[in-house]
Amino acid sequence: MNAIVAEFIGTGILILLGSGVVANVILPGTKGNGGGLIAITTAWALAVFCGVVVAGPYSGAHLNPAVTIGLATVGKFDWSIAPGYIIAQLGGAMLGSGLAWLMYRHHFDMTDDPGLKRAPFCTDPTVRNFSTSVLSEVIGTFVLIFVILYIAGAKLEDTAGTPIGLGSVGALPVAFLVWVIGLALGGTTGYAINPARDLGPRIMHQLLPIKGKGSSDWDYSWVPILGPILGALLAAGLYLVVGA
Amino acid sequence: MNAIVAEFIGTGILILLGSGVVANVILPGTKGNGGGLIAITTAWALAVFCGVVVAGPYSGAHLNPAVTIGLATVGKFDWSIAPGYIIAQLGGAMLGSGLAWLMYRHHFDMTDDPGLKRAPFCTDPTVRNFSTSVLSEVIGTFVLIFVILYIAGAKLEDTAGTPIGLGSVGALPVAFLVWVIGLALGGTTGYAINPARDLGPRIMHQLLPIKGKGSSDWDYSWVPILGPILGALLAAGLYLVVGA
Amino acid sequence: MNAIVAEFIGTGILILLGSGVVANVILPGTKGNGGGLIAITTAWALAVFCGVVVAGPYSGAHLNPAVTIGLATVGKFDWSIAPGYIIAQLGGAMLGSGLAWLMYRHHFDMTDDPGLKRAPFCTDPTVRNFSTSVLSEVIGTFVLIFVILYIAGAKLEDTAGTPIGLGSVGALPVAFLVWVIGLALGGTTGYAINPARDLGPRIMHQLLPIKGKGSSDWDYSWVPILGPILGALLAAGLYLVVGA
Amino acid sequence: MNAIVAEFIGTGILILLGSGVVANVILPGTKGNGGGLIAITTAWALAVFCGVVVAGPYSGAHLNPAVTIGLATVGKFDWSIAPGYIIAQLGGAMLGSGLAWLMYRHHFDMTDDPGLKRAPFCTDPTVRNFSTSVLSEVIGTFVLIFVILYIAGAKLEDTAGTPIGLGSVGALPVAFLVWVIGLALGGTTGYAINPARDLGPRIMHQLLPIKGKGSSDWDYSWVPILGPILGALLAAGLYLVVGA
Repeated sequence: MNAIVAEFIGTGILILLGSGVVANVILPGTKGNGGGLIAITTAWALAVFCGVVVAGPYSGAHLNPAVTIGLATVGKFDWSIAPGYIIAQLGGAMLGSGLAWLMYRHHFDMTDDPGLKRAPFCTDPTVRNFSTSVLSEVIGTFVLIFVILYIAGAKLEDTAGTPIGLGSVGALPVAFLVWVIGLALGGTTGYAINPARDLGPRIMHQLLPIKGKGSSDWDYSWVPILGPILGALLAAGLYLVVGA
Repeated sequence: MNAIVAEFIGTGILILLGSGVVANVILPGTKGNGGGLIAITTAWALAVFCGVVVAGPYSGAHLNPAVTIGLATVGKFDWSIAPGYIIAQLGGAMLGSGLAWLMYRHHFDMTDDPGLKRAPFCTDPTVRNFSTSVLSEVIGTFVLIFVILYIAGAKLEDTAGTPIGLGSVGALPVAFLVWVIGLALGGTTGYAINPARDLGPRIMHQLLPIKGKGSSDWDYSWVPILGPILGALLAAGLYLVVGA
Repeated sequence: MNAIVAEFIGTGILILLGSGVVANVILPGTKGNGGGLIAITTAWALAVFCGVVVAGPYSGAHLNPAVTIGLATVGKFDWSIAPGYIIAQLGGAMLGSGLAWLMYRHHFDMTDDPGLKRAPFCTDPTVRNFSTSVLSEVIGTFVLIFVILYIAGAKLEDTAGTPIGLGSVGALPVAFLVWVIGLALGGTTGYAINPARDLGPRIMHQLLPIKGKGSSDWDYSWVPILGPILGALLAAGLYLVVGA
Repeated sequence: MNAIVAEFIGTGILILLGSGVVANVILPGTKGNGGGLIAITTAWALAVFCGVVVAGPYSGAHLNPAVTIGLATVGKFDWSIAPGYIIAQLGGAMLGSGLAWLMYRHHFDMTDDPGLKRAPFCTDPTVRNFSTSVLSEVIGTFVLIFVILYIAGAKLEDTAGTPIGLGSVGALPVAFLVWVIGLALGGTTGYAINPARDLGPRIMHQLLPIKGKGSSDWDYSWVPILGPILGALLAAGLYLVVGA
């Protein structure tokens, strides 16, 4: 599989599953309504797992511009390929959230609350304070990228055949990392920690004919772009300072 | 163990555990009543894990006609053996759901709601709209089969002895995949994603002397057969197009 | 470590953690009160994991007379050592439940309900019907032992060093198996699936000076002994018939 | 990375995530409010996982003075390096809890209950009985250290390259161990089981300008220091007696 296609499909699966669980847990009338924090965070973690399993061998499974930028900053990824990756991630995120909406569209119709209709697409802070929101996304993404760099480092030290030997079991650590970020650091902004994860579905929310959808909240849209990029650069910087 | 026997026993364990958790969580008076989405989806995921651990080395642990058809379509399974596999899967699913009913039969008696009595057997949509229901099953099964093909591919690239080296730990990725499908894509139809999982227990619901059981809802029964098969073909097709 | 000591300590840790989670979730005033099905079943699964990690390399980590009897029946364990194992398991279970009581004793005092006071020690059926209760324990233990035999079989086919290579990660499959049994097959009797797990703590409930404790329910005590043994023999028999 | 730096960063990540999940679950107005026992215990377990992944190859990832003391007692760690480790752990815990407070500070402001404001920092017993609280911390830490010694032992028996071959998957067993300790043995004191985890954040609670924060409860502060150290020594002692 081509690396760009892998990023597109991998991010598509990630966001289909991620948008899907939010729809299932918060929209009225679904089987999973009221499933709570544990259901949402478990599913987002395993959504990453699925995306990594599919895209991993072909693109390295970034699925996130912050990962692409973080790896490029520490010299583990070529800057020249980055734009293609990021566009594919954004496109995949748009497709995934569109499919989730299509599947749950009767349940979108069952509520009048525009906030509930937007939640499966993009993130929203509990308190409208931009500096705190940026800080939250910086911290969440910092942990994501910093720990990923050590997960990747552990693999690089293996003898050649061994990481492949673990097969898809080797994709679990990143999923567990995303799980805990959701549980621990998702309480204020809903942990975008990925610019494509937020912007792609927000564009879809704007474009799709969702009844009574209300605003796509573009005022907030820069936070889950800037915060994750800052967090990734901070993580990359600290990684370069303390060394592997 | 013979491959057909393995499919029968593996699917039997899968459905015993799957029917069991639904009975435990939704029937009145059980220890697990009210356990919610996380309990049901965790158990179905681990039910697949158990079926795969038992049947894996003998039949490849399809446990699902959609998997059999998907693998045959991409040339990883011989079409001539498929009918035997599918009959064994259906039989195992019937046995498993029958045992779960036997075990929880006092709790079936504790409710008058025929919907609750049917739920441990077969799936039921939240909204009676056939096209949306088929779409939901197509999407769920597409993700199941598409990701499984890459999980299997990762193993095939290993050197000979390595996948065996992981022992039953190697069966975890499929379980994690089923977990997230349940959480994210199970909210509309209850994620059959497996024709045998729905049809076998539905036949049992029709046959068993369950007091006040009401209809077995045959009107809906074709959806969790057609949807998963379409989803599997779609996944196999995309896999063939994008390549491994 | 001596094998008998390993069974004693391993079962002690298992029951300390298992009794502990029941106390935490059901007794009033604890941090975990109301944690529900997912908390209880997760902890019992991981309690088995801990016991297996400690005792595995020294005794094979049976921690359960039904496992000892099942393995002996299929010729994978020497009958002459079985009595020592079973006595150690029973002793460990007594010690573990005693420690859990000691730790949670203020919370035992906070309730007047003798049923709640007995629950952290031993199992109790939702419906007092001995044949259904025996059947439930037979089915639960059958799944436990049957799947364990295939988990163990997968390991035996590895080349010599490989199972050790997984270290304690190799103990996870049994934990996942116990997790799903609790979720799916624990709804009627509370899944003893282990004669030592029920009898040892029941003896402790009889002996300990628990205020207002009520009956130790000896009328029911034979069910979680007979059921698991029958289930283990059935699993061993089927394993011998269908072959590895 | 330098070992002392690794302990500082690893413990910092651990406590950022641990303080974070408590804030998310118990403070009003967060996305995760009411997430319950399973959310808190899962996150603390995975917080340990993240800390171990980062610090493991550089310092052995103690992240806990009780681990440092336990390993030194059984001769697996050099006493002369212990003070540096412990100071780094304490500093990391302070930094981590400070960051979690910064991120959730609006939600700290939303409650008037000083108990809720202190809970993300340090532990608090359900019943104010020092001997029971010490006993609880002794038992919890005993299980932590005793099982870790066998997890570490399993790795030491591997051939040289194998533990590295598991990469960060090898860090999962310790996380699962912490998960079950939280579920089963956390119900009375909130399972500090780590002197740095409690003392560092308690100092921060004292120092930070948290509005209406009330007492830092120094009366209780010695329990989560003494209990874990006693538990670690007991575990190390039993390990030396029964042998590996």
